[in-house]
Amino acid sequence: MDSATATSVETSNGSVTHRPGQTLTEVEPANSTTAQRAITTPQRKYRHVAAVHSKVRPSCLSHDSTAAPSFIGFRNLMVIVLVAGNLRLMIENLQKYGVLICIRCHDYRRSDIMVGGLLYFLIPCHLFAAYLIELAAAQQARGSRTRIKDDDAGPSEADKKAFHSTWVLVAWAHAINVTLALAITTFVVYFHVHHPLIGTLTEFHAVIVWLKTASYAFTNRDLRHAYLHPIKGEHIPELYKECPYPQNITISNLGYFWLAPTLVYQPVYPRTDKIRWSFVLKRLGEVFGLSAFIWVASAQYATPVLQNSLDKIASLDLASILERLLKLSTISLVIWLAGFFALFQSFLNALAEILRFGDRSFYDDWWNSESVGAYWRTWNKPVYTYFKRHVYIPLLGRGWSHQAASTTVFFVSAVLHEILVGVPTHNIIGIAFLGMFLQLPLIAITGPLEQMKLGQTGKLMGNIIFWVSFTVFGQPFAALMYFYAWQAKYGSVSRQVV
Amino acid sequence: MDSATATSVETSNGSVTHRPGQTLTEVEPANSTTAQRAITTPQRKYRHVAAVHSKVRPSCLSHDSTAAPSFIGFRNLMVIVLVAGNLRLMIENLQKYGVLICIRCHDYRRSDIMVGGLLYFLIPCHLFAAYLIELAAAQQARGSRTRIKDDDAGPSEADKKAFHSTWVLVAWAHAINVTLALAITTFVVYFHVHHPLIGTLTEFHAVIVWLKTASYAFTNRDLRHAYLHPIKGEHIPELYKECPYPQNITISNLGYFWLAPTLVYQPVYPRTDKIRWSFVLKRLGEVFGLSAFIWVASAQYATPVLQNSLDKIASLDLASILERLLKLSTISLVIWLAGFFALFQSFLNALAEILRFGDRSFYDDWWNSESVGAYWRTWNKPVYTYFKRHVYIPLLGRGWSHQAASTTVFFVSAVLHEILVGVPTHNIIGIAFLGMFLQLPLIAITGPLEQMKLGQTGKLMGNIIFWVSFTVFGQPFAALMYFYAWQAKYGSVSRQVV
Repeated sequence: MDSATATSVETSNGSVTHRPGQTLTEVEPANSTTAQRAITTPQRKYRHVAAVHSKVRPSCLSHDSTAAPSFIGFRNLMVIVLVAGNLRLMIENLQKYGVLICIRCHDYRRSDIMVGGLLYFLIPCHLFAAYLIELAAAQQARGSRTRIKDDDAGPSEADKKAFHSTWVLVAWAHAINVTLALAITTFVVYFHVHHPLIGTLTEFHAVIVWLKTASYAFTNRDLRHAYLHPIKGEHIPELYKECPYPQNITISNLGYFWLAPTLVYQPVYPRTDKIRWSFVLKRLGEVFGLSAFIWVASAQYATPVLQNSLDKIASLDLASILERLLKLSTISLVIWLAGFFALFQSFLNALAEILRFGDRSFYDDWWNSESVGAYWRTWNKPVYTYFKRHVYIPLLGRGWSHQAASTTVFFVSAVLHEILVGVPTHNIIGIAFLGMFLQLPLIAITGPLEQMKLGQTGKLMGNIIFWVSFTVFGQPFAALMYFYAWQAKYGSVSRQVV
Repeated sequence: MDSATATSVETSNGSVTHRPGQTLTEVEPANSTTAQRAITTPQRKYRHVAAVHSKVRPSCLSHDSTAAPSFIGFRNLMVIVLVAGNLRLMIENLQKYGVLICIRCHDYRRSDIMVGGLLYFLIPCHLFAAYLIELAAAQQARGSRTRIKDDDAGPSEADKKAFHSTWVLVAWAHAINVTLALAITTFVVYFHVHHPLIGTLTEFHAVIVWLKTASYAFTNRDLRHAYLHPIKGEHIPELYKECPYPQNITISNLGYFWLAPTLVYQPVYPRTDKIRWSFVLKRLGEVFGLSAFIWVASAQYATPVLQNSLDKIASLDLASILERLLKLSTISLVIWLAGFFALFQSFLNALAEILRFGDRSFYDDWWNSESVGAYWRTWNKPVYTYFKRHVYIPLLGRGWSHQAASTTVFFVSAVLHEILVGVPTHNIIGIAFLGMFLQLPLIAITGPLEQMKLGQTGKLMGNIIFWVSFTVFGQPFAALMYFYAWQAKYGSVSRQVV
């Protein structure tokens, strides 16, 4: 009811046919000031005759309308409905269960903490062994290089053979060393660490070191090759010139790689100039806050839903299992998003800042993925770039097809997923393996959508398929299965009675 | 894992410092074709050395990032979560209550239908009486005009007095006639119509005719004034020249106004050229489909929630009432949106098309409202333009302040709301009156936000305040109160046992 709008509408005398000039003359031919006043002030008489319906015009939601109106208000409404809906569920949950958060209830056994701590210091020892292996190889390469330079005739067939046999030896040494690290950790976690959180952290550490050592070995193999037998047209990235092979084989260089937020070894990384400690503190604050949030969400919201699902899985009541999956999907999605942000944005950025590691592209905008494949390329770039550099591209180089190389990548990834989930929960039931490996047919199905160039509709469809497969069937189903398997084997994870 | 991307990334040898020209010379100085092949095919050797971390770059969610990434995927996710969440609630509802939809269960009493039908034909009779009143006034005006023309000296003081006394007489005749229509309907509905749906429809009809007759009387008063005593500088809209006063006082002209989708009388409306029957059929199909949807939603989802809230209101358990309000808000919002679309888009457009009524601007994009005031200006334009033309602007013209005129408009509107809701439910408890009248302080509070020019943030805040006040506290609270009052007085509205 603002008077400004009112005035302009009501005094226009809204006729469709009148011409602007004519109106003015009609209003007051003699005095233009009066005429202007007649336009800017409300009509004094005949107030009830104004033609509010002065022209033919469509409703703004009609197809007759030339431009669709903005729907930004409905986006805001969606956010509010989500907040309100979940606020309601939180009240319901609190009425039903009371407060379930309890620090002392958790069953962190003394032996678990001891074993976990021991393994935390044991795993890096294998890194030291890897350093010694590379050091020996580098020594031998220095010797060969001197011999080749003395010859001045380029590498002989015998030299190449010697290089290959050295590589076989080095590869075996690395493989035995690092697989021992993984095998010992896996064995100890599976048989001697009860609490799944401690087990998962330890197993993650071992798998990361396993991957990093493989990258270290492969990269140094190629660097050594280039050092001994450079091929024309194949060159080492200029970035590495700051620290050429074998100068990079130092304990500090390897130590930096151990801590750096990447799985891919490079002798030199792009670095930032200084550490912004305020940035580090903010990120660590985020990690702390989000971890607390995840803990509360798991204990208060996810656990009861999982608990309530047990007899429904046992009785194989499909409608009820679907209902449970849908209920679980919201909370598992929220936890997943918080965990993603805490790990990939906050923690890795804090770590990178402390190490002055320059390349912070740990993820891309995976939430806009237009296909399942796009999601796997963007959500976890450390793992994606690792498998691309050390598995996919080398296999293509050996003449494998795209299909075969992709399958290998997803097979290796699926095995690692099963190790990371199945071993700490003491249930190697293959759901994590399948959940990963079945991405391949899913990518194959959704791939055409990506390439069909359907425009906005195709992109929207692809994004929706990605979210549904990810949210409704991916995370919650796997979580439900491992929780069920755990409960079937051990009963409750904590001492509290739910 | 698309090989195109892989190739380009892996072969770029990603150094930060190299210059493009230099790279080409380094690769193969002699042959540019070979050089190009080196770029487009994967590197044959040294595959594990590629610098995947080749430059300093921030994470895309960091503040360091120059541009924020798109979040369109999260909008899609919200839609999915809403659909999934409500799908879950629908399964839960079906498990708990079974199918509640039942055509024969509803208590449409024979007497209700008889009385409703009778009133449906009685109300237009008062329109005929209004026509007769205007016809008499027009006859008298024709006589005056002939007399004035004979005089040729302009209207005398006596003439003006005569006009005024005629208007007082005409106004009283109209007021008595139309208020009789409203009063009879209200009396009969309150005491003799049990079913609230039949009562509401009848009461709506009476209120609409009441408003239309008032507009008819006011507009013709001004037209008569202009016909008898034209004032220089004050003119009648050109649109009306097709049918000047008193030619517009015909039974067909009033009949068109009775049916037309507007509350504001104009002798002439903008018209379309022809009736598109396919358009009419589509709109009527929407009305039918949405009505069925609203019926199912009310019976299956809204009724159980309302039913479950009864003892919580009785016990004044505030946390539980809030929980119920939040649960009710979703379904009442969905029903409201469906009802809005069915009435304002589908029904009024169908009616307008049949009557070739040109101005279809029955609403604007109220969902983007940046304040509560903007919502009231845009969601129901027939009522808004009515009150602006016949109450707000005339009061401003009499020297009232914006504040006083607005208060009057909201007071009249609040009274009408209470009549429309309180009478058919036989509970004049004042909640509808207050719900409307308390909009004034709400508008006063949110108004500054609109004017503060806070940019996007202010608009977003305003829109969120509007939605929350509208969704969470507006509709569901009023529905809950009248349902409670009804149940307290009569027990269940239908014979079914919930």
